[in-house]
Amino acid sequence: MGGNSFGKIFRITTFGESHGLGMGVIIDGCPPMVEIDENYIQSELNRRKPGQSKIVTQRKEDDRFVIQSGVFEGKTTGTPISIFIPNKDQKSKDYSHIKDSYRPSHADYVYQKKYGIRDYRGGGRSSARETVARVAAGAIAKTYLRSQGIYINAGVTQIGHISLDTHVKDINWSLTEENIVRCPDLDKAHQMQALVETIKKEGDTIGGKITCNISVCPIGLGEPVFDKLHADLGKAMLSINAVKGFEYGSGFDCITMRGSAHNDIIEKQGEEVMTTSNNSGGIQGGISNGMDIYFNVAFKPVATIMRDQKSIDHTGQSVTVKGKGRHDPCVVPRAVPIVEAMAALVIMDHFLRYQAYHRPS
Amino acid sequence: MGGNSFGKIFRITTFGESHGLGMGVIIDGCPPMVEIDENYIQSELNRRKPGQSKIVTQRKEDDRFVIQSGVFEGKTTGTPISIFIPNKDQKSKDYSHIKDSYRPSHADYVYQKKYGIRDYRGGGRSSARETVARVAAGAIAKTYLRSQGIYINAGVTQIGHISLDTHVKDINWSLTEENIVRCPDLDKAHQMQALVETIKKEGDTIGGKITCNISVCPIGLGEPVFDKLHADLGKAMLSINAVKGFEYGSGFDCITMRGSAHNDIIEKQGEEVMTTSNNSGGIQGGISNGMDIYFNVAFKPVATIMRDQKSIDHTGQSVTVKGKGRHDPCVVPRAVPIVEAMAALVIMDHFLRYQAYHRPS
Amino acid sequence: MGGNSFGKIFRITTFGESHGLGMGVIIDGCPPMVEIDENYIQSELNRRKPGQSKIVTQRKEDDRFVIQSGVFEGKTTGTPISIFIPNKDQKSKDYSHIKDSYRPSHADYVYQKKYGIRDYRGGGRSSARETVARVAAGAIAKTYLRSQGIYINAGVTQIGHISLDTHVKDINWSLTEENIVRCPDLDKAHQMQALVETIKKEGDTIGGKITCNISVCPIGLGEPVFDKLHADLGKAMLSINAVKGFEYGSGFDCITMRGSAHNDIIEKQGEEVMTTSNNSGGIQGGISNGMDIYFNVAFKPVATIMRDQKSIDHTGQSVTVKGKGRHDPCVVPRAVPIVEAMAALVIMDHFLRYQAYHRPS
Amino acid sequence: MGGNSFGKIFRITTFGESHGLGMGVIIDGCPPMVEIDENYIQSELNRRKPGQSKIVTQRKEDDRFVIQSGVFEGKTTGTPISIFIPNKDQKSKDYSHIKDSYRPSHADYVYQKKYGIRDYRGGGRSSARETVARVAAGAIAKTYLRSQGIYINAGVTQIGHISLDTHVKDINWSLTEENIVRCPDLDKAHQMQALVETIKKEGDTIGGKITCNISVCPIGLGEPVFDKLHADLGKAMLSINAVKGFEYGSGFDCITMRGSAHNDIIEKQGEEVMTTSNNSGGIQGGISNGMDIYFNVAFKPVATIMRDQKSIDHTGQSVTVKGKGRHDPCVVPRAVPIVEAMAALVIMDHFLRYQAYHRPS
Repeated sequence: MGGNSFGKIFRITTFGESHGLGMGVIIDGCPPMVEIDENYIQSELNRRKPGQSKIVTQRKEDDRFVIQSGVFEGKTTGTPISIFIPNKDQKSKDYSHIKDSYRPSHADYVYQKKYGIRDYRGGGRSSARETVARVAAGAIAKTYLRSQGIYINAGVTQIGHISLDTHVKDINWSLTEENIVRCPDLDKAHQMQALVETIKKEGDTIGGKITCNISVCPIGLGEPVFDKLHADLGKAMLSINAVKGFEYGSGFDCITMRGSAHNDIIEKQGEEVMTTSNNSGGIQGGISNGMDIYFNVAFKPVATIMRDQKSIDHTGQSVTVKGKGRHDPCVVPRAVPIVEAMAALVIMDHFLRYQAYHRPS
Repeated sequence: MGGNSFGKIFRITTFGESHGLGMGVIIDGCPPMVEIDENYIQSELNRRKPGQSKIVTQRKEDDRFVIQSGVFEGKTTGTPISIFIPNKDQKSKDYSHIKDSYRPSHADYVYQKKYGIRDYRGGGRSSARETVARVAAGAIAKTYLRSQGIYINAGVTQIGHISLDTHVKDINWSLTEENIVRCPDLDKAHQMQALVETIKKEGDTIGGKITCNISVCPIGLGEPVFDKLHADLGKAMLSINAVKGFEYGSGFDCITMRGSAHNDIIEKQGEEVMTTSNNSGGIQGGISNGMDIYFNVAFKPVATIMRDQKSIDHTGQSVTVKGKGRHDPCVVPRAVPIVEAMAALVIMDHFLRYQAYHRPS
Repeated sequence: MGGNSFGKIFRITTFGESHGLGMGVIIDGCPPMVEIDENYIQSELNRRKPGQSKIVTQRKEDDRFVIQSGVFEGKTTGTPISIFIPNKDQKSKDYSHIKDSYRPSHADYVYQKKYGIRDYRGGGRSSARETVARVAAGAIAKTYLRSQGIYINAGVTQIGHISLDTHVKDINWSLTEENIVRCPDLDKAHQMQALVETIKKEGDTIGGKITCNISVCPIGLGEPVFDKLHADLGKAMLSINAVKGFEYGSGFDCITMRGSAHNDIIEKQGEEVMTTSNNSGGIQGGISNGMDIYFNVAFKPVATIMRDQKSIDHTGQSVTVKGKGRHDPCVVPRAVPIVEAMAALVIMDHFLRYQAYHRPS
Repeated sequence: MGGNSFGKIFRITTFGESHGLGMGVIIDGCPPMVEIDENYIQSELNRRKPGQSKIVTQRKEDDRFVIQSGVFEGKTTGTPISIFIPNKDQKSKDYSHIKDSYRPSHADYVYQKKYGIRDYRGGGRSSARETVARVAAGAIAKTYLRSQGIYINAGVTQIGHISLDTHVKDINWSLTEENIVRCPDLDKAHQMQALVETIKKEGDTIGGKITCNISVCPIGLGEPVFDKLHADLGKAMLSINAVKGFEYGSGFDCITMRGSAHNDIIEKQGEEVMTTSNNSGGIQGGISNGMDIYFNVAFKPVATIMRDQKSIDHTGQSVTVKGKGRHDPCVVPRAVPIVEAMAALVIMDHFLRYQAYHRPS
C-alpha cells in the first residue's frame, strides 16, 4: 500500500534510496523457464546510466547488478526474482546543503511534511535513481515479450521547440541508439544535441518528449472499464519522475478532430483485419486491436539547475538554494529505456492476465 | 482481475450492460457515519444523464437509483454500499444492425475477439452508460471530501478549435453549471454551443477538453514511486470512455520550458507555505503540496456518427454500418461530472491511505 | 479494503444486510463462455435456504435470485456477473429488543464499537444470510470446475459427540443429500438428527464438523509461500460464520505422529504418480499433488439460543437478552453448500492463476 | 500474484532460496518514525536460527542481516524497508542426491511439475529457511505494536502425546524462553526435551503444537465477511511450512459444546466491558473484542528423516532416498518466533487498516 509495487500478475516492488546501499527490485509472478541473458540486462542498464555521454550527468555510477534469487542455471524458476544494484558513486556531502532546505519543484518539502523524516541525500527515495530498478525488471519483461513477437521501441521526438514532423508509423527506430540524444532522426538529433549543450552551459535545463511504439500486441490485451490498456500505460508513464503528460493515438490532437475523420475504418487486408488509419493508437475500448500501439510522454525540465534559487528552510526562513552537484540538463535521452521498461511491464502483466482466462484449446 | 474495480482502500466495483437490467456499483471501504443526501446523488446523476439539453443525446433515461445496502437511517455503516440504476429507455432493436458488424472505432470488434461473445446491444459493457455508476460512487466520495474542505470542479475548456485563454487559477467555476456546454466562460460557451449544433446537423461529432481543479488537498496525499497522486489521477481519467490524453500542471507545455522558468519557488506567505507559481499542478514527487491540483483531459469525437461508414462483419465481409440511434455530437458536456467523480474517487482513496499511516497525535 | 472481496483473479464482492433490500454478489474475472444453468444455481441456494427441514430455522426465505449482468444468451461474457437475492421474510420487529443490547457471542457489540453505527436488524451485515451470496457465486465456480473434471463434496461428519469413524477416502458422498443432516453415513445421520431435535427442544444449540473432499485437482495449483493452496482454503473456511477451526490432511492428529509414519511414499501406479498414503491431504508445499484434497471445518454452536441470557446494553447497564426469533439449533446441515462454495472459489481462483503463467504448448 | 507477498497495507514480499545468495524481505507500507533496534531484530532471528540448541538442526547459519533501505538515522522513513540475510553455511553437495529424486512429503515433486524447473538444493524456495525473512519483518511489526500496548507470545504446548493441561489464560509466558523446547511449563518442557532426544536418536521426527496469545488488541480490528481477523490469522499460520491445522478460541472443542455453555457473557467490570469466559478467543464476528486473542497451530513431523525411504526419480523409476544432512527432529521449538512474527504481521496490517477509516477526533 506504500505505492512501491506495480502490476497485478507480473508484479514488481522496488526499494532503495539514492545514497543508501543500493537500489533493488523484486519481481513476483514471472513465468518459469524464461532464459535470462545478463548481458542484455546490463546493456539496458547502460542505456539509462549516468555518465554515458557528454549531454547527461557526469556521475560515474557503474550500475552493476546482481541477481539474488529466482534464477537457476540461467532460467527463471517461477519464484521471486530479486535484482540488486549497489550504489557506488554517492557523494553524500554534495547534499549537506539541502539537509534543512527544500529545493524548488523537488519532493524535499512534501516528503518532510508527509513522513516527518526523510533521507535528504540525493533526494533519497524520490531520486530518479529508483528507475534503475524498473529498467532491470523491464529487461526481463522485454525478454519474454520478444519471445512472443512483441517489440517495444521508444525515442526522443522533441526537446524544447525542436520536434520531429514524422508520423510515428514512419519512424525508423533503428536510428535511436545511433546518437546520444536517442532521437530516431539524425538531423533533429544534431539540433537537439546542440540545444542541450547550450542549455547546459547556461546552467539551465529543458523539457522533452518521448514517443513509444509497441509492435505488435495480440488482439485482446487490456481489461474493460478501469484497467484499460492505455489507462495502465498512462499510469505507468506518469509514475516516472518528471513526467507531466501522457497521450496515445491521436492524443490531444483529437480535440479538434471530427468523428468522420477520426474513426479508423476496419477492413480485411488479405487474411488480416486492419484499420486503414490508426488514430486509436492500437487500442479500442481499452483493448488492443492488433495494430501498433503508440503514445507520447511529456517530461518537464529537470528541477535541479546550476543557478541560485530562492526557497525556504525547515523553519520557514528564506534561504538561497545553490545549484550544485552533477545533473542532467535534459532528462529524455536517459529516460528512453525507462519508458520502454514501464511499457514492457504493462504489456507483460496484461499478457499474463489475458492467459489466465483463456484455456489452451 | 477483470478490471472492473478501482481504488485500494475506498474501492469501487461497477457492473452492468447498456441494455441489460441496469448499471450498478459496490463501494467497499467507505468510512462509517457519512451522511448520505440522496437528492445530491440524484443531482449528480442528472448532470450526466442523457436528454438534459438539446446538444446531447435525446435518449430519455431517468437514471433513478436505489441504495441496496450499506446505508442505515441515512448514514453509511462501514459495510459495502450497493447502488443500482435500472435501465429504462433501452431500444434494443436499434442495435440489431450491429449484431454481426463492427462499428469503426468502437469496442465491438475487440470484445468479440477477446471474449468470443458480446452483448452487442448498445455496446453492452463498453457503453459509456457504465459511467453512471462511477458518478453515483463519486457523489459519496465528494460528500466526504467536502466535509474535509476539499472541493472538486471541472468544466469544458475546449471544443474543436474554440478554447479558453484563461489560466486555470483564474477560472470562475461557478459559471460551469450556468450553460448547457458546462464551460466556465459564458462567451466561449455560446461559441461552443453553436459549433456543436452545427456539427450535429452535419451528422458528425467533435472532440473536446475538460479541465479539473481540486481545492485544496492537504499536504501529503499520494504515494511515492508508482502510486503518485497524478499517476492515479491519470489512470482514472484515461479509464473514462473516449479519453485520449491527460496532463497536469504545466502538462505538455513543459516540453518547451526551461527549468529556471518552470520551477515553483517556495515561500512563506503569512503562516502558510506556498509556491509563487504552480507549474507543478499542486503535486511534487507524486505528493500533494497544498496548492491547487489541476489537470486537463482530452476527449475524442464520439465514434458513432450519423453517416454511413465502411466496415466488416463477423465473417470478414465488407459492410456499410449505418449511423442510427440517438447519440451525443460531443461528449464533454456530459463528461464533466464523470471527470469530477473519478477525481473524487482518487482523492478519497489517497485520503484514507494517508490516514492509515498516521496516528492521531 | 473493507474485507468484502475474496479471490485474486476470480474475485467476488458481496454486499447486503439481513433485513435490507437483499443480498448480492459481483463476480469479476469469470472466464467468458461458461454456460449458466439457473436451475443449478437455484438448487444450490435451496440447499442453504432456511425452512428446508424440521431441524433448521423455520424462516421462509425463498432465496430467488436474479442475474443482473454478465450473462448473455445463457453464457458468461467475461464482464462482471451480478447476482441479487432480494430479502423476503424479514421480520424486523423480531429484533427491536436488541437494538440497544448486545447478544452474547454475537457481533453486535464489536460492530457498534468499530463503526459507531450498525443495522441491528437480524445482525445486519454480520448475519450468516450473507453466505447466500457466496453460494450463488460458488455455483458458477463449480460449474466451471466440473467442466475441468474437478468435483467438490462436503458433508457433516460430526455433531456433538456423534462422529463418523470412516476415513475420508472411504466416504460415500452420494449419501449426503439423502438425509436432512447432510451426513454421508445414514446411521450416524439418524443419531445426529435425534440429537439436534433434543437440543432444539431444550432451546439450546450444538456444534458440528464438516469434512470436504476435492477430487481431483490437477498438479500445480497453489502458490508457494503465502498463497499456499491450503492457506487459502483455510482462510476461506475461517471466513464462514461460526467457524472456529480448520485442518487438512492429517490435521491436528499429525501432532502425535512420527515422520516415518506420516510421510506419504510416492510411487508410480501404472502411468500415474500416486502416494500410497495421503496424510498430505493432496497438497505438498502448498501445491496440489494430484491426490484428493480433504479438510475438516469446526463450527461452534449457534450463539442465538432460546433462553434468557445476561448481557449489557449500550449504556453498559446489565440486561437480560431473551431468546427470540427462528434460529438453527445446529448450523452444519445448512453450512455444507457454503463450505463447498468457498472451496470452489479457492480452487477456481488458483486454477486461473495457474493458467496465467502457463502457455498453451 | 506469485504468492510471495502478505498483507494489504503493511505488506511484505519475501524472496530467496535456501542455497542461493540469501533470503530477504521488502516491507512496503511501514509507518514512518518507528525506531529500529537492530539488536532486537537479531535476537528474534537468533530464536529461529539453526544450531541454537542440541534438539534442533546443527547447521551453523549466522543469520546476520543487513537493512538495505527504508531506515535513516535509526528510524523508518515510510519508504520500503529491505532486509537481506546472506546464506552462509550452505552445503549444496548434501543435496546432489535429490537432484533427480523426489523426497516423500516434500515439495520437490510438485515444484518440478508446476514449474518444469527447480532449485533442488536444500529445497530451494520451499525450504523453511524462507521464514527467516518473515521473522525479520515480524520484529519490526512487533516493535510498532508494543508501542501501542500489544504483546504477542507463543510457546510450545504439545509435542507428541506430551501436552500442557493449563488453559491459555493461565500460561506463564515468561517461562517460554527459559528452556530449549520453548514450552511455558518447565516440567513438560523436560519431558518434551527427552522425547525429542529419543526421537532424534531413532532417526525419526515428531509433530507438535504451538499456542499463541495476543494481549491486548484494541476493539475493532478485523474486517467483516472475508477478512475476519481470525481468517487472516489462520491463513498466516497455514502459510508456515509444516502447518496442518489452525483453531482459535474454543477451536475444535466447540464441536461438542452447547451454545448455552459456549456463549461468552458480556459484562461491565469497573469501567471496562469484558466477557466472563473467552471461548470466542477475543474475536467476535471476525472483529477483536478487547479480550485476549489466542489460537493453536498444529505442526506435522519434519518430512526429512534419517532413514532410507522409497520414492521415485524424475523418470518415474523407483529409488531409495537416503536420510542425509542436518535436520530438526521436531520443528516447533524454532517455529515459535515464526508464529509470533506472522501473528504480528496480521495484527499490524489490521491496525493500519483500522486507522484508515477513523479520523482522529
